[in-house]
Amino acid sequence: MMRKINVGIIGFGTIGSGVLKILQDNSDVIRKRLGAIVEVVKIADLDITSDRGVRVDPKLLTTQAQEVIKHPEVDVVVELIGGYEPARSLILQAVNEGKHVVTANKALLAKHGSEIFSAVENQQLSIGFEAAVGGAIPIIRAIRESFVANKIYSIEGIVNGTANYILSKMSDEQCSFDLALKEAQDKGFAEADPTFDIEGIDSAHKIAILSQLAYGTPVNFGDITIQGISGVSIDDIECAREFGYRIKLLAISKFDGDSVDIRVHPAMIPQSNLMANVNGVLNAVRVCDDLMEENILIGHGAGSLPTGSAVVADIIEISRDILSGSKLRVSPRSFLSTSIKTIPILNIESIDSEYFLRFSVFDNPGVLSLISGILGKYSIGIFSVIQKGRCDEGKAVPLIMMTHHSNEKNIQLALREIDKLKVVYEKSNFIRVEK
Amino acid sequence: MMRKINVGIIGFGTIGSGVLKILQDNSDVIRKRLGAIVEVVKIADLDITSDRGVRVDPKLLTTQAQEVIKHPEVDVVVELIGGYEPARSLILQAVNEGKHVVTANKALLAKHGSEIFSAVENQQLSIGFEAAVGGAIPIIRAIRESFVANKIYSIEGIVNGTANYILSKMSDEQCSFDLALKEAQDKGFAEADPTFDIEGIDSAHKIAILSQLAYGTPVNFGDITIQGISGVSIDDIECAREFGYRIKLLAISKFDGDSVDIRVHPAMIPQSNLMANVNGVLNAVRVCDDLMEENILIGHGAGSLPTGSAVVADIIEISRDILSGSKLRVSPRSFLSTSIKTIPILNIESIDSEYFLRFSVFDNPGVLSLISGILGKYSIGIFSVIQKGRCDEGKAVPLIMMTHHSNEKNIQLALREIDKLKVVYEKSNFIRVEK
Repeated sequence: MMRKINVGIIGFGTIGSGVLKILQDNSDVIRKRLGAIVEVVKIADLDITSDRGVRVDPKLLTTQAQEVIKHPEVDVVVELIGGYEPARSLILQAVNEGKHVVTANKALLAKHGSEIFSAVENQQLSIGFEAAVGGAIPIIRAIRESFVANKIYSIEGIVNGTANYILSKMSDEQCSFDLALKEAQDKGFAEADPTFDIEGIDSAHKIAILSQLAYGTPVNFGDITIQGISGVSIDDIECAREFGYRIKLLAISKFDGDSVDIRVHPAMIPQSNLMANVNGVLNAVRVCDDLMEENILIGHGAGSLPTGSAVVADIIEISRDILSGSKLRVSPRSFLSTSIKTIPILNIESIDSEYFLRFSVFDNPGVLSLISGILGKYSIGIFSVIQKGRCDEGKAVPLIMMTHHSNEKNIQLALREIDKLKVVYEKSNFIRVEK
Repeated sequence: MMRKINVGIIGFGTIGSGVLKILQDNSDVIRKRLGAIVEVVKIADLDITSDRGVRVDPKLLTTQAQEVIKHPEVDVVVELIGGYEPARSLILQAVNEGKHVVTANKALLAKHGSEIFSAVENQQLSIGFEAAVGGAIPIIRAIRESFVANKIYSIEGIVNGTANYILSKMSDEQCSFDLALKEAQDKGFAEADPTFDIEGIDSAHKIAILSQLAYGTPVNFGDITIQGISGVSIDDIECAREFGYRIKLLAISKFDGDSVDIRVHPAMIPQSNLMANVNGVLNAVRVCDDLMEENILIGHGAGSLPTGSAVVADIIEISRDILSGSKLRVSPRSFLSTSIKTIPILNIESIDSEYFLRFSVFDNPGVLSLISGILGKYSIGIFSVIQKGRCDEGKAVPLIMMTHHSNEKNIQLALREIDKLKVVYEKSNFIRVEK
């Protein structure tokens, strides 16, 4: 008789219904590859009446998460409610009950990952969280298992589909941020409250998780510099294009052997770069290391079936461990708990980068000299300049510069000084360049 | 005391020396992630005197592969000699001795995969072959473990770096095939005899392996249509550009539920497509399925360290199985041996595609009518035409067409008929379009 792995789901929303649908519709291919049946035996959600577009035996539904966690037959608990609590407590309880866990909860793992991973390891259980970063993109498995002998030195990710959709739309259709956001909401690519997505917090959760796996360090989420895309204007995007760049919301993590530089912000990427051509809701993660130079994984980072597909792959991985009798095959943190070592996170002020600067100035004689003088004082070298004149004297005109590699702190000091000049019409803007 | 996994290497060439170097130089990161030491205890090669640029204890070296296979302490035998024999016999012997196997041998697995996989499964052992396709790109693991619940319906790969380098160079520098090949050879990207790479055979080996894993069918290598890039001219590339396309050597595999369509040939891809922007020696594999739409993995497909990195990842995966006491965790063929079912391979003549056609014609009145008449007779609809006139009457001019979806057999019949026309100066050329 074919063996059976029993799954309990907590949270029957978009992803939860996708997981159930996949386990039902694709049970044949799962059976042919795993050699076992994966069956959902309990589903908990506060709302057990709404139609999710997937057939479900009403007997499976409960409003009590405890009925999933304490279910004697459940092998794997799938947590899909998101947020910190009660998700954290439920996962810890499930682990305490001897259940393996699969979760897509990036916020929770970014902040409470260490606690959860330790609990899982102490109980000799497994935890899967492929769906927490990049949806269907197999980046967690790649780092934990494929790039396992590699000294990773950088990760760059376009890991928020909402933000990428908005920036792509602004770029392709020359529309404003507000219009692009509205369309993303109309199409279901952005939530009613899009703060986490557009302000970079969701991306920061994801890069925090990837950094832990890549370098074997805990990451204090509060140390990450986070800047979203709500300040990106259509002017920035057009200027970027003139210089041969596109603007993407990048989650960046770099390790120089001594410290890690983790940050999320809009970045200018050369148009010839593959990452610059990852558009719409697509996500991409680029990993660089000492052995393979670069590896780029591109796919859908959200949605019921893409994310559900990653959740199911984790369920099957755990099923394989159960069926083959293996325990603690892969460390959840990618490094053994005894090898985790805190690496300091660099303050953003100490990074070096090239910068795109956009000033709005009155077209008076001497403006360029004034501004470039201040930049020079702070050791900021100018690589190229575009100044656009206007016929209607007295109005502000844009002055655009690309700098050589400069120090962030100096950029900030220089801009503060420049913004005090009488010839400067509004607050100056800068965007970091990533090549 | 930390446990130790012992590795024996057969074939101490480019990849073999890369594997040894990684296991030595990165032993620290391996130990921190695996929790064990991976040590090379025996290396066999016919040449044990040349310097490979990596330090090696001379006591480890032998000219006798049997000393690796029969070594009592060896847990994993790494086969890196390539080709059919003696690689096949050595792997089967190693399996017979109870050794796990890691190999980068795509030619062998494409032709004798079934025999080898069966032997491995019968002995309850593991075989890793991530390095056989796409070098550092984790495509084998992605198909076997990440896209495991997914009904894959197509795979497209740029899986030969030599061919991609040549086409990219022809495209970027408008140089001839011969010149690009010569430069690839000078730079070490192409071998002295580049036949397997430029004639598509190497790509066919790889797509044969991926097709088996994706659909659970054996693939008879002889049924694959293979066409290389030696017939691609700079004119083709320039015309492609005019239509907004780039030419890539694509390994294609499509499954419609009844039959698989597997082929390797130069293909025109729209410039806006990410795959069209994978240039130089980079490889890329795009997988489409019912759940995640598309997933593209891009990286270096060859070279000592990138390929070595994939070999070492496989060694570590097997080490994890050994350490955690798991057997047959993942089926080598991705499907259980009992679920493998032969799916017929489509004859190329029955496929439908859009085509790019290039005729060389004398600029006489009525030429266009003659040619389009023959195309019409074979139900080939013309989507667009470029005809370039020339001042010097009587000389041949190019006539370029893009067709609507048409049947391959009809295209071949039409071209045969067209090539008999007196107004046609030389053999007509066609390139399939992939979108």
